[in-house]
Amino acid sequence: MRVLVSNDDGVDAPGIRVLADSLAAVGQVTVVAPDRDRSGASNSLTLDAPIRALKMEDGRYRVAGTPTDCVHLALAGLLEHEPDIVVSGINNSANLGDDVIYSGTVSAAMEGRFLGLPAIAVSLASRDHKGDHYDSAAQAVLILMRRLLVDPLPADTILNVNVPDRPWHEIQGFEVTRLGKRHRSAPCIAQTDPRGKPIWWIGPSGGAEDDGPGTDFDAVRRGYVSVTPIHVDLTRYQALEKISGWMQAMTDAMDEKAA
Amino acid sequence: MRVLVSNDDGVDAPGIRVLADSLAAVGQVTVVAPDRDRSGASNSLTLDAPIRALKMEDGRYRVAGTPTDCVHLALAGLLEHEPDIVVSGINNSANLGDDVIYSGTVSAAMEGRFLGLPAIAVSLASRDHKGDHYDSAAQAVLILMRRLLVDPLPADTILNVNVPDRPWHEIQGFEVTRLGKRHRSAPCIAQTDPRGKPIWWIGPSGGAEDDGPGTDFDAVRRGYVSVTPIHVDLTRYQALEKISGWMQAMTDAMDEKAA
Amino acid sequence: MRVLVSNDDGVDAPGIRVLADSLAAVGQVTVVAPDRDRSGASNSLTLDAPIRALKMEDGRYRVAGTPTDCVHLALAGLLEHEPDIVVSGINNSANLGDDVIYSGTVSAAMEGRFLGLPAIAVSLASRDHKGDHYDSAAQAVLILMRRLLVDPLPADTILNVNVPDRPWHEIQGFEVTRLGKRHRSAPCIAQTDPRGKPIWWIGPSGGAEDDGPGTDFDAVRRGYVSVTPIHVDLTRYQALEKISGWMQAMTDAMDEKAA
Amino acid sequence: MRVLVSNDDGVDAPGIRVLADSLAAVGQVTVVAPDRDRSGASNSLTLDAPIRALKMEDGRYRVAGTPTDCVHLALAGLLEHEPDIVVSGINNSANLGDDVIYSGTVSAAMEGRFLGLPAIAVSLASRDHKGDHYDSAAQAVLILMRRLLVDPLPADTILNVNVPDRPWHEIQGFEVTRLGKRHRSAPCIAQTDPRGKPIWWIGPSGGAEDDGPGTDFDAVRRGYVSVTPIHVDLTRYQALEKISGWMQAMTDAMDEKAA
Repeated sequence: MRVLVSNDDGVDAPGIRVLADSLAAVGQVTVVAPDRDRSGASNSLTLDAPIRALKMEDGRYRVAGTPTDCVHLALAGLLEHEPDIVVSGINNSANLGDDVIYSGTVSAAMEGRFLGLPAIAVSLASRDHKGDHYDSAAQAVLILMRRLLVDPLPADTILNVNVPDRPWHEIQGFEVTRLGKRHRSAPCIAQTDPRGKPIWWIGPSGGAEDDGPGTDFDAVRRGYVSVTPIHVDLTRYQALEKISGWMQAMTDAMDEKAA
Repeated sequence: MRVLVSNDDGVDAPGIRVLADSLAAVGQVTVVAPDRDRSGASNSLTLDAPIRALKMEDGRYRVAGTPTDCVHLALAGLLEHEPDIVVSGINNSANLGDDVIYSGTVSAAMEGRFLGLPAIAVSLASRDHKGDHYDSAAQAVLILMRRLLVDPLPADTILNVNVPDRPWHEIQGFEVTRLGKRHRSAPCIAQTDPRGKPIWWIGPSGGAEDDGPGTDFDAVRRGYVSVTPIHVDLTRYQALEKISGWMQAMTDAMDEKAA
Repeated sequence: MRVLVSNDDGVDAPGIRVLADSLAAVGQVTVVAPDRDRSGASNSLTLDAPIRALKMEDGRYRVAGTPTDCVHLALAGLLEHEPDIVVSGINNSANLGDDVIYSGTVSAAMEGRFLGLPAIAVSLASRDHKGDHYDSAAQAVLILMRRLLVDPLPADTILNVNVPDRPWHEIQGFEVTRLGKRHRSAPCIAQTDPRGKPIWWIGPSGGAEDDGPGTDFDAVRRGYVSVTPIHVDLTRYQALEKISGWMQAMTDAMDEKAA
Repeated sequence: MRVLVSNDDGVDAPGIRVLADSLAAVGQVTVVAPDRDRSGASNSLTLDAPIRALKMEDGRYRVAGTPTDCVHLALAGLLEHEPDIVVSGINNSANLGDDVIYSGTVSAAMEGRFLGLPAIAVSLASRDHKGDHYDSAAQAVLILMRRLLVDPLPADTILNVNVPDRPWHEIQGFEVTRLGKRHRSAPCIAQTDPRGKPIWWIGPSGGAEDDGPGTDFDAVRRGYVSVTPIHVDLTRYQALEKISGWMQAMTDAMDEKAA
């Protein structure tokens, strides 16, 4: 089995090292990851400049690009053999609820799915971005990966996995979850820079608003590995009918306008 | 009615000017947009550096940041009065199918929705990023916006709108659509830079793979305004049950491991 | 006469507009300038990525690059006809003493000189980067430029010009000056960002340490246009002899080492 | 003796490792260097954003900034004890002639000098940025540094050192040199990116134009360590008199204008 490993914390982050080492026990691992921290990059793809990929002595690729760039480049040019699965992480902090929209970790997995491969994003629910138990997260990935390869998910689905920052024997089990929801993040913080000019900082993200039973927040808090299926087709099918009801009136409005 | 307008082509792009001017006829418009082209930025949020927002003489804000930064800053600090709706665009080329994942235009609208507001992303299906009929797209937004404000969508839904690059009287009507799907983009292009070092370019995006009836591709091709409801909750609920079936076996696998 | 105009405050800055308009009265002006503020860029040259130059409707070029990139690109590819002189500015604040080392304004002029042309860097000694009398600086450039073209400077010399921010009739005259010297800048400022991580800001630049008679600081303070010849050959010839005295002993030290 | 070591190739480059290890034999070394390759950064100083400095486990500092930022931050905030000397390098290729203007290696040394310390910039004259004999360059620095500390240079002078990429026993000795001069670099290279948009690359730097006896080019070619004194006061004193001759006429021109 061939595994492509990427992340958004950068190729030198502790999480990706632990992940790659663990996966090397069960497959042939290739690491293609950003040259530095690219957290919050979301699905950014570098279209206006070339990308550089440096193969390091240990065989890993250090890419001057986003997580999405890394996976895209790996699958659409860099690697000779297509991998069987993409695993992104282990992120140094949780990606719960709305976090997934901004997360480079999740985006790297999404890009793998777009390019035709099963994909897992995995994050460690640490405090202060300093995880202690990356091993637990790597262990959870191993179990999930084996399952995923024998029982594939639909082509528009990836798994977003969050693992409590605990020793493996203190993990309570796995739970399938939906994304919870955070409160709005704190207001932007207005400051003045040392040269007297106004600046703004994006405020810290909000606490959980919907973290009840069934959510990823709840599972992690209770010590379970949270496994959330995420789709990469953003169509909201349930809304199609309602909006269909608008169409005639709107088309009529056009005619009035044109008349 | 207060409207927040943003985009990803930058505050000086023609599309945002036409949009802001059109909306000014029906409401109080505030423009908060990137200082330069930020296409492909997706939902990137700038967390590791401060953001600067310059209020220009004409009242528009020029922000050194991503589209998501712009909307976030506007709603969480910059503006005194909360707007009633966020409109992002008019993008200088289509955002169809998988494009939405990478699109800064769509991300600006998503950020509006996250922060509690109805939101519309609008793109002109031009050739070569050079649109002729931004007026048509602005017209379509006006009609949609009126509808959206009297008949709100669920809190996790935004509208992704693509408008054919035609004069308004040649637009055939509105159609509600699902996202189509593109073929994989062309392979990355390997080059050598003038200093002899290897570089890669992300290849052009692929043509339509699923562009049949009901898709956004199909509507635009036939001359209709495509209106796709997009959700911002990425949970794939339909997969919850299947994955639930895995849980016991995986938790058992843990115990084996621990044993 | 053909004049290439660039700057480091960006193509939309007020200073470059006033300068270009003034010079248009006496020659054929081409503006090639950064797309945004690049103050402090020094002589940075973009070697690892391509540069984009957008010709605007009014004929000016907006370049996604540093001031040095702009002048280099203009003279080594973009322009059909080689200009007769390069003028960089009008910077929105003074470039006095040690400032010249970091200044993108001065660097743009240096790059012109490297590529074979006479060059002037001009700055307005405003308060808080908000100049009132760019016209005065443009006027001073006109006078200097005429002189420079009939009485050329040596090939390794450019002029660094600082103009008091006063109406033209309050300017006392021209003075040739040497660079003064600033005190060390204020210490770096340690802060914690909103996510709890340590950051540092470069402190404000220091006040004048050597601003006595003959310096650029002194001339500007007294209301004169300061004209400082600057060399682009950094060899310190006066030190050659002293260091020559070291050579034998050092070569001997090599032999000892090797022995 | 305390030595501050920086560079522009980045903290992980082979040259800075060899340099730091060598200097550790004679003093207390602190490494403060960019987190990635910043070649060509010149004296850029980051004024519009904060700088982050990460202390690594081995005590070295990895800075998200330019070479000038690194030295400035080290001396104006980061380090408790002021060093006795700044050494920048070992650059992975030569910095000869006009190269010094653009060189981040030289700029890091200049910043040390501005902040009051003796400083040496050292580069290995390798082919293709792949040096074999960094040890030779480190050896040359050790000899020079001992000399410099007992026989200081004037406060406005630093040393720019280029070392042939040969084993130490094949180095012919030390030579004091002036900067030679390169031909103009090759023209910019116009290309079209994969999305059909025009781009430009800065062309390769030119070959030597003035590389005769006494120049740094000549010394290195003949197998000598080239030692060039560089000044950080850019005033061209020799031109002061000539330009003085202009002043009266120009001031007269003002009066005419005003009249």
